[in-house]
Amino acid sequence: MKSRTTNKFKGIKPDPENLIRNANIDFSLLGEIVGQSVVSVNQFSREMVGTLCKLAALLESKKLELADALKGNIIITAFFEPSTRTRLSFESAALRQEAKIISIPEGARNTGVAKGESLSDIGEMFNAYGDLVVLRHTETDAIAAIGENLRIPLVNAGNGSGEHPTQALADWYAILKWKPTILNEELPESEKINLGILGSPGSMRAVNSFLRMALLFKDNIQKITIVSELADPLGDELNKLLSEAGIPWLCTHDMEGTVEELDVIYMNSIAFLGDSYKAMDSNFKLHAGSPLKEDAIILHPLARLGELDHSLDDSRHNLYFDQAHGAVFVRQALYMAVLDRVKDIGDRINVVKENELELQTV
Amino acid sequence: MKSRTTNKFKGIKPDPENLIRNANIDFSLLGEIVGQSVVSVNQFSREMVGTLCKLAALLESKKLELADALKGNIIITAFFEPSTRTRLSFESAALRQEAKIISIPEGARNTGVAKGESLSDIGEMFNAYGDLVVLRHTETDAIAAIGENLRIPLVNAGNGSGEHPTQALADWYAILKWKPTILNEELPESEKINLGILGSPGSMRAVNSFLRMALLFKDNIQKITIVSELADPLGDELNKLLSEAGIPWLCTHDMEGTVEELDVIYMNSIAFLGDSYKAMDSNFKLHAGSPLKEDAIILHPLARLGELDHSLDDSRHNLYFDQAHGAVFVRQALYMAVLDRVKDIGDRINVVKENELELQTV
Amino acid sequence: MKSRTTNKFKGIKPDPENLIRNANIDFSLLGEIVGQSVVSVNQFSREMVGTLCKLAALLESKKLELADALKGNIIITAFFEPSTRTRLSFESAALRQEAKIISIPEGARNTGVAKGESLSDIGEMFNAYGDLVVLRHTETDAIAAIGENLRIPLVNAGNGSGEHPTQALADWYAILKWKPTILNEELPESEKINLGILGSPGSMRAVNSFLRMALLFKDNIQKITIVSELADPLGDELNKLLSEAGIPWLCTHDMEGTVEELDVIYMNSIAFLGDSYKAMDSNFKLHAGSPLKEDAIILHPLARLGELDHSLDDSRHNLYFDQAHGAVFVRQALYMAVLDRVKDIGDRINVVKENELELQTV
Repeated sequence: MKSRTTNKFKGIKPDPENLIRNANIDFSLLGEIVGQSVVSVNQFSREMVGTLCKLAALLESKKLELADALKGNIIITAFFEPSTRTRLSFESAALRQEAKIISIPEGARNTGVAKGESLSDIGEMFNAYGDLVVLRHTETDAIAAIGENLRIPLVNAGNGSGEHPTQALADWYAILKWKPTILNEELPESEKINLGILGSPGSMRAVNSFLRMALLFKDNIQKITIVSELADPLGDELNKLLSEAGIPWLCTHDMEGTVEELDVIYMNSIAFLGDSYKAMDSNFKLHAGSPLKEDAIILHPLARLGELDHSLDDSRHNLYFDQAHGAVFVRQALYMAVLDRVKDIGDRINVVKENELELQTV
Repeated sequence: MKSRTTNKFKGIKPDPENLIRNANIDFSLLGEIVGQSVVSVNQFSREMVGTLCKLAALLESKKLELADALKGNIIITAFFEPSTRTRLSFESAALRQEAKIISIPEGARNTGVAKGESLSDIGEMFNAYGDLVVLRHTETDAIAAIGENLRIPLVNAGNGSGEHPTQALADWYAILKWKPTILNEELPESEKINLGILGSPGSMRAVNSFLRMALLFKDNIQKITIVSELADPLGDELNKLLSEAGIPWLCTHDMEGTVEELDVIYMNSIAFLGDSYKAMDSNFKLHAGSPLKEDAIILHPLARLGELDHSLDDSRHNLYFDQAHGAVFVRQALYMAVLDRVKDIGDRINVVKENELELQTV
Repeated sequence: MKSRTTNKFKGIKPDPENLIRNANIDFSLLGEIVGQSVVSVNQFSREMVGTLCKLAALLESKKLELADALKGNIIITAFFEPSTRTRLSFESAALRQEAKIISIPEGARNTGVAKGESLSDIGEMFNAYGDLVVLRHTETDAIAAIGENLRIPLVNAGNGSGEHPTQALADWYAILKWKPTILNEELPESEKINLGILGSPGSMRAVNSFLRMALLFKDNIQKITIVSELADPLGDELNKLLSEAGIPWLCTHDMEGTVEELDVIYMNSIAFLGDSYKAMDSNFKLHAGSPLKEDAIILHPLARLGELDHSLDDSRHNLYFDQAHGAVFVRQALYMAVLDRVKDIGDRINVVKENELELQTV
């Protein structure tokens, strides 16, 4: 036998304890989310994002033993739009805490939907089958349709060209582990992050949700640059949100002259249109030779096409692998909050020592 | 966060305790079903249906704590014909009692069957993989083929244009919760139910099984009317069964003049032909303006097309949502019986008080 | 109810205790496999195969109670090439010992791969989702691609026209139960087995792996005959391996004059070419009237086409059903070894009595 794995993790992997060291964590805020459906980033406050990320960090750093936190719950993963990664990430998060899974893995083509069944009827049935439904759908308005009769909480795992709020949680969990001061302090101007988005928020749900969540941290963002091949990459609502945010932002078709100044780069190239997808903005390519700042980090919700070259995988710019890993933990944290399993660990955790993390539940 | 669900259950939801209040439940009858395959409603007696429904009612009303009743069992859900609702209902029932699931969710197209594997070989393999198989198949004779080498029990979850016996259990569980006297008494003529079926029992497996189970309760059925677009909606066997039942029945092409007299209306519009399905009898439409008796109830195995309008969902005629919910509990009860896990709760339960249900296992 | 199953097991079913009676089993050898990916039969020594088969025999004979041996582990079954039997066999093996399953059951068509996601990215994600991945893929080089970033062990469940090493373990587990002296002794010439392969090892992964494992037992093999419709059924590497083995072997296009002398016949007829398969060598048919030696046994990895007639199922030549059943137990044994759960049962088991098996862990 000679196949023992010797692969090393590629990219950077910030210590999740960065987020919880010397922090008092007040979980009572998560009471707001109990029994709630999570549809849009608009539902989140900065404090809620921070608290969920801290719970995720406790789980990732193994500071909390919560192996059966979801015991007794059945989670329905209803992927009417197929996905490898996202479904497995949600299912792994559930199973790690002893929830059970029932799944529609194969898209709508093979289901009762194909016989003409309405989403509102399927939603009514879900009430009987499980305790929470994770929904991905090709249609943006599927959430509203299935929600018509739903009495169990729903987590939006991507609806057409709409939103993908747990992806945004995973994105910002990675960023906050990398630079916890964004969450905890008002940074001096020189340390605020220069944020670039290569992609079209108005057409790409992950980018849309990322941008909405970015605005929760606008106090520590110097500037937002959106590089897109579209004339209007935002649409009215995002345009308004950005304009009201009171920070510098601009849209451009050209990443030259921009990319070398960015601290955080968010990329994507897959846009959804009805039940198909198309590559967009994939002409904005980054590779090991791109003129990046020395400590710039790249985020990408994956899957990637050619826009993010594998030559960057081994670099210190690669935060996208850690971002994907952390997604499991933020989803665990979200399940715990929505299914009201946080109070079992106490409302408040005081983290007392700096060097050797110690939890004190009070 | 502002998405707390405020949806209410639509339709009527009879109390499952209706079925078990003041009842002595003798579970020893379920010994007959231990290790059995459940293929056709023909296998059931009225007493067996009643006992399974009472066990389901104990589970639904949470009068029995049986969270690990199926622990140690692996249930195979083999859906060679795709289905959302039915597979999830069977899987939820299994998981709620700690059985484990292995599943063929995607239809025959993607499986070894596509390589020409025979169903009898697959059946032989199932013996090694699990303790019970739930089979749905596009072909009516698939049950016989897979059963050739099977030594574990099989539950028929729909075979082509054949039968769907657990759907009939769910149908009658809903009816018996709604009017328990059908099970427990011989009703005076004026209280017997006038039963209408909008659909073709000979071509629709759910309707076929429903009608066969209806005949177990013929003493309390005043009349059966079958409204179908077919010249012969029954076929020889069902014709003979109905003729021998000794109650009035008729087939008609026209629901006018009929529907206003019915107490219980069973609808469906999807018929299976080989590996495809087609809409049939969908010209018989019910909606909020239909001339229904004030306390008439409607059953539908769902998925529905246009024949059952959503305007009825909020009405007191809607028993179809409760019917779908109850399906999980009758399937739990059936698993427990077939897998010999009922005797663990004692042979007999005496329900002693009327107002406050109390269980006494003796 | 009249459907109690009366089917009997068809074919022969050697007692798994044959393999462990009077044997001292030294599990410490399995330490070599901890954390390893299992890609090719080339990784196995004869001793390793023997030890895994003895562990499987302990499990099959229920001499070890190990119902939670894999508790806390998540196993990913990634079947980018669809399969009924193999996936369910791997999943049943996992669930029987309390591992959890996340699954890609539906082939690559519906996954992120369809969006152009690279296998190396998927491998990186798998690190975050589970503890072991079972991979089947239409492409032979998929193992290498997904392994690029993988840090959890992988079990190859069939890669294109490459290998299928756990199938070979199941094959030889059946043979060794049937004739344990092959493992434990050097047999006299007259008792060595005359082995025939109907199929093309160079194009059929199961046959390829079977042949490679056969060479581990060459001391007790009299002769190997490969009956194939191809001019070169082996390819360079297998040709070299056979030539170096130092035992008589030959390739022929004609099974007449050969089949009547064989003790063990291995058949298959499905060859994989890219993402499709084709029937090959299916003109070599065996049936109840074939001129087999009285105690010859037939193995077949199934699914079968016409080459292995059902008329043989009830005969004493049928070891293929037992072979399929045993596959679950060798996969359990392999999981336990790779996931380092063997040492929990002690390094060494002394089996002390002949007639009544007794385990003594020392």
